[in-house]
Amino acid sequence: MDLPYCANQFAEHTQTLIAITARLAARGWTPATSSNFSMRLDQQHAVITVSGRDKGQLTPADFMAIDFDGQAVASEQRPSAEALLHAHLYRRRPEINCVLHTHSHTQTVASRLYAGAGRVHFDGYELIKAIAGNTTHDASLTLPVLPNSQDMSTLAAQVEALLDAGPLWGYLIDGHGLYAWGRSHSEACRHLEAFEFLLGCELDLLRIAPQRASRLS
Amino acid sequence: MDLPYCANQFAEHTQTLIAITARLAARGWTPATSSNFSMRLDQQHAVITVSGRDKGQLTPADFMAIDFDGQAVASEQRPSAEALLHAHLYRRRPEINCVLHTHSHTQTVASRLYAGAGRVHFDGYELIKAIAGNTTHDASLTLPVLPNSQDMSTLAAQVEALLDAGPLWGYLIDGHGLYAWGRSHSEACRHLEAFEFLLGCELDLLRIAPQRASRLS
Amino acid sequence: MDLPYCANQFAEHTQTLIAITARLAARGWTPATSSNFSMRLDQQHAVITVSGRDKGQLTPADFMAIDFDGQAVASEQRPSAEALLHAHLYRRRPEINCVLHTHSHTQTVASRLYAGAGRVHFDGYELIKAIAGNTTHDASLTLPVLPNSQDMSTLAAQVEALLDAGPLWGYLIDGHGLYAWGRSHSEACRHLEAFEFLLGCELDLLRIAPQRASRLS
Amino acid sequence: MDLPYCANQFAEHTQTLIAITARLAARGWTPATSSNFSMRLDQQHAVITVSGRDKGQLTPADFMAIDFDGQAVASEQRPSAEALLHAHLYRRRPEINCVLHTHSHTQTVASRLYAGAGRVHFDGYELIKAIAGNTTHDASLTLPVLPNSQDMSTLAAQVEALLDAGPLWGYLIDGHGLYAWGRSHSEACRHLEAFEFLLGCELDLLRIAPQRASRLS
Repeated sequence: MDLPYCANQFAEHTQTLIAITARLAARGWTPATSSNFSMRLDQQHAVITVSGRDKGQLTPADFMAIDFDGQAVASEQRPSAEALLHAHLYRRRPEINCVLHTHSHTQTVASRLYAGAGRVHFDGYELIKAIAGNTTHDASLTLPVLPNSQDMSTLAAQVEALLDAGPLWGYLIDGHGLYAWGRSHSEACRHLEAFEFLLGCELDLLRIAPQRASRLS
Repeated sequence: MDLPYCANQFAEHTQTLIAITARLAARGWTPATSSNFSMRLDQQHAVITVSGRDKGQLTPADFMAIDFDGQAVASEQRPSAEALLHAHLYRRRPEINCVLHTHSHTQTVASRLYAGAGRVHFDGYELIKAIAGNTTHDASLTLPVLPNSQDMSTLAAQVEALLDAGPLWGYLIDGHGLYAWGRSHSEACRHLEAFEFLLGCELDLLRIAPQRASRLS
Repeated sequence: MDLPYCANQFAEHTQTLIAITARLAARGWTPATSSNFSMRLDQQHAVITVSGRDKGQLTPADFMAIDFDGQAVASEQRPSAEALLHAHLYRRRPEINCVLHTHSHTQTVASRLYAGAGRVHFDGYELIKAIAGNTTHDASLTLPVLPNSQDMSTLAAQVEALLDAGPLWGYLIDGHGLYAWGRSHSEACRHLEAFEFLLGCELDLLRIAPQRASRLS
Repeated sequence: MDLPYCANQFAEHTQTLIAITARLAARGWTPATSSNFSMRLDQQHAVITVSGRDKGQLTPADFMAIDFDGQAVASEQRPSAEALLHAHLYRRRPEINCVLHTHSHTQTVASRLYAGAGRVHFDGYELIKAIAGNTTHDASLTLPVLPNSQDMSTLAAQVEALLDAGPLWGYLIDGHGLYAWGRSHSEACRHLEAFEFLLGCELDLLRIAPQRASRLS
């Protein structure tokens, strides 16, 4: 078949994503077949996980191509319901090459607790420097929390507004989990790990010394 | 020997259950030789773990067949004390093909805390959609909590009443752990992971913001 | 050399203990070269870990024989400081064949919190049945907590009194960790896992609903 | 090329550090490419990790030599920003042969909570004996907490003052993580594990019984 994207690139990205998802699944960040993962193929296509598979046991057959409207390309399979959110980021930001969406315990609990405030602020952590563009722990970093919705267009419009407002490398959705991305798959992984770590610290401050944690409202 | 069930099916299900239990044991959900696991063989038989084995190191010799009264079939071994609860589900619901019973820390603590209320309510979690029949995070999901008993007939009668009341894919027993099941072994695993995840989130809400968690009474 | 114990038995027990300690170390229950492990060789000897080794990387050279005064037998190596506590159990209870001493986070924190009360009570847990002699979750199980001491004779005398008082399959030492034992190495492992699990549940009750947990005083 | 240090020693230490970092990364103590690790080569040089690599997947190419001003030696690569802190310890203390700097959740949260007090006190833990020079759990052990700074000279000067004041095998930096060291790589690992363990216990005391924990101010 004549594919509208490079089959070699597709195969290579698939291998990269299999390795990444296996690692994230082993940490328990993709429970119950949740989560989805993608990499940019070119100016119009990305490779993404097929909906509903166990992320700890992915094979090349569990990946498919989508266009930047989130529609399947040259595939009978169904992409993740959230494919549109991935596609949207690739369309809007040419420098983004990898998008990771996970569902860890920490991400989910934090999203529930900070949904009212609409954001989590991180202050005084050395690991803030792991997020692109931050060169000192003195910086303050904000992770937005969006209300959950089964309507992906609504979510996409909200992300649109956030992207307009300044540098953004991730967001939480209430009750749902984290999106993180990067210019490379390594950077996307680093951002994902850093947000997870920082959220885990904030939750522990809430358990021990709530007045030290990012405010809940 | 002329077996009343298909030996090939038995062997295949045994391999499937060994793989599943190894994974669950590695997560610490089967402490101290607890927990039991089964798959349907046909309209009258299921394969189930033999009582008292280390679930991280099962071999085919650690499985046996039971009928739907929970009695050993063509085996000298003793099935788990809870075999009747597995059998009961297979008898009552022809669509059920796999039943998983685990004893994780989270399941046990949640069962203790919510025994008084008799149920845990989950609201606002995307992962509610991982439970069959739920298509939106806006749905509310209820997991019943039964009082513990050493009399399996009593427990089975209580489950009977729950099954009559509507769709049901799992329950907790006080101080004891979780039963989860599915139409396939994959679905049973997905349900088990989803309940564990949701219970873990609720326990953390209880630690941090108890007014946000499912009510304890 | 003419050994006063069976060399084959020594070699076999060493392999068993290497497998057990590797598993326990992987769970983080033996931090910073802590913990020690033994199995009975005969009526007068046991094999035990040499002092100060990384329990995740033991080889046969990290084991030695002791007599039931806790003294090295046919070895220039130094047994663990707590060798006397192991020896004491083998001497007093001919049915004991394996003693495991670990230092998990949960064991240590619980030992600190319950040292004042001198014991932890477990009620209403199905896993109480994992401890030999308990056939129902309705039973109440008590795990003693001894004050810590660098004088092993003092500790041994306190254990003596506990052994006189009734069935006993483990105890905590304040700030120090857990001793658990069994008639076989499998039973010792099951007892260790069960105590760890039950202590973990009690600590979580203390975090969430302290009035439900074993009393601190 | 004629190297000012022994290439064989460099290669050997690199292998040792790869094994150590793989283990620490697997525990999640090096999130988002953070953390750095070194071993002394001689009176003037040490081998250290190159900046910004994933510590779970290091190869020999991810290591380089520095002098005791923290400058690269015979390498075009950039050492970690914190290289000066490693170098400083090797210069000041000839007996130090390995320095490990990690970023675990526990270390980071503890550093935030105890930054105001400037130190964590550990009392009554058997594991205090894992830190060189402590022979009884009755001893009291203090771990200093330094304010974070992007200026390594400032941090180095603060460490200088601490080293003058008495035996010291580690310190925390606020929001940043732990430095631990030893006369051998084994001792450095043991110290790192012991501090992590003790900090984890103190955080749990803060969650459950704050009046029992090291004071926050």
